[in-house]
Amino acid sequence: MKITIIGLGLIGGSFALCLREKGVAQHIAGVDASPENAAKALEMGLIDRVVPFEEATNGADLVVLAAPVNAIPTLAVKVLNRIKPCQIAMDMGSTKGELGEMIALHPNRSRFVLTHPMWGTEKSGPEAARSDAFAGRAVVICDGGDSAPEAVRTVEEIYTRIGMTITHMTSEEQDIHTAYVSHISHITAYALALTVMEKERSEGRIFELASGGFESTVRLAKSSPSMWAPIFVQNKYNVLDVLRELIHQLQIFRRLLEKDDLEGITAAITKANEIKRII
Amino acid sequence: MKITIIGLGLIGGSFALCLREKGVAQHIAGVDASPENAAKALEMGLIDRVVPFEEATNGADLVVLAAPVNAIPTLAVKVLNRIKPCQIAMDMGSTKGELGEMIALHPNRSRFVLTHPMWGTEKSGPEAARSDAFAGRAVVICDGGDSAPEAVRTVEEIYTRIGMTITHMTSEEQDIHTAYVSHISHITAYALALTVMEKERSEGRIFELASGGFESTVRLAKSSPSMWAPIFVQNKYNVLDVLRELIHQLQIFRRLLEKDDLEGITAAITKANEIKRII
Repeated sequence: MKITIIGLGLIGGSFALCLREKGVAQHIAGVDASPENAAKALEMGLIDRVVPFEEATNGADLVVLAAPVNAIPTLAVKVLNRIKPCQIAMDMGSTKGELGEMIALHPNRSRFVLTHPMWGTEKSGPEAARSDAFAGRAVVICDGGDSAPEAVRTVEEIYTRIGMTITHMTSEEQDIHTAYVSHISHITAYALALTVMEKERSEGRIFELASGGFESTVRLAKSSPSMWAPIFVQNKYNVLDVLRELIHQLQIFRRLLEKDDLEGITAAITKANEIKRII
Repeated sequence: MKITIIGLGLIGGSFALCLREKGVAQHIAGVDASPENAAKALEMGLIDRVVPFEEATNGADLVVLAAPVNAIPTLAVKVLNRIKPCQIAMDMGSTKGELGEMIALHPNRSRFVLTHPMWGTEKSGPEAARSDAFAGRAVVICDGGDSAPEAVRTVEEIYTRIGMTITHMTSEEQDIHTAYVSHISHITAYALALTVMEKERSEGRIFELASGGFESTVRLAKSSPSMWAPIFVQNKYNVLDVLRELIHQLQIFRRLLEKDDLEGITAAITKANEIKRII
């Protein structure tokens, strides 16, 4: 296949590596708003050539949107404006509400497949691309019924080739679920990092003791603002729901501790331990 | 050395494995409040024999307290009541305030060395013991000036042999620091697990999408209540300080999101990214 990838960071770059390694792509063109990122991706061999956005659909079997989620809806409309019936477009973003609404009534809507591969690291940019990305994780295909069946099939085949498990749900469901299993983890990591760094300023030496548990909880706080700030804003209402519930749970914990309620804390932890059946 | 370890769970069991592997211990006696744990530790070869608590000091060069932190102060006093001038006692607990106060004026205080090796996993019990524990991490020795210099030296040598880096601070400092780099990570993990499981009850399917980021943030929520509930209660005031600050940071985030303040969220994330210089 000939594939154009728009957005050559962690996700787009990793997708390029995987498509090449699994023999899915014979030729990969790349588009990036940053000329430095595009040049870097070319130099690293992630893509075969850099093209301007206006030429993204030229000769491509598949056009992939891997840009930040606030850029995707506009890019999607522009790509659909140019797309031919034999071509497919897809996105890899973490939120779907705004995107779905922007392309809902587009005459070429059926050429677009909304996808969210559940993989990432705290790194960013083309240098962060990894050929072992995606494998073993779930990918969500959203509102599959609004896309042409053959387009969905092609996209599913590609994700299967790179080792992902396909799940279908509506855009609305996907935005709720990712708020709970992905977006909130990032917010807690950011908040925890800010809390600890604030204390370090007055206290010093805090980090001499940083242990494995701290590292794994705070690792996500290294994730890039250009990718994550737009995700939170686009998924605002779902993220606010989870955030309110998390703050509520922390306040319960705080009240138990203020009352020295060892029994209540033990019960809360025992309940939290049930997460073992899942991860 | 002949060593007695009191508490044969994750920490005591792992210490036994490391002491044996590095040739520090020629004979290890074990004490545990649970006869099942003690039998399991014996069967696994973590210890050479099980002894009742009353015989813990008999013939031992070193007595190690690796029980939950609410049990340690009482055990420490009883061990010091029996200890001879040639013997050393130490603990491996995560909090020091209560312990320090309980033994402060004991005539044999100088035979006790307060230590906190900064290592752990979310597992518990003798089965969770690992021979690769501790190595590469920091160990805190608290109020070292209150212990006999030769006792501190011996304990330092043992920790160095198993690959740890020695740090000295007061009990008070250690309790503040661990609240920030260890205790709060566990509380956020518990709260996050409770939040997500609550939602799953009404929504279902949440966990199909659980990704690597979710797993690493929530992993600590599997940690045992018998170990962690007493830690939070013993370190109440420091943990409450961090908890209040964390809730405050989350509320700031929530308000930025309510106002769709992309710029403010970007600034907060950029500041949180500074954690890169540390981990």
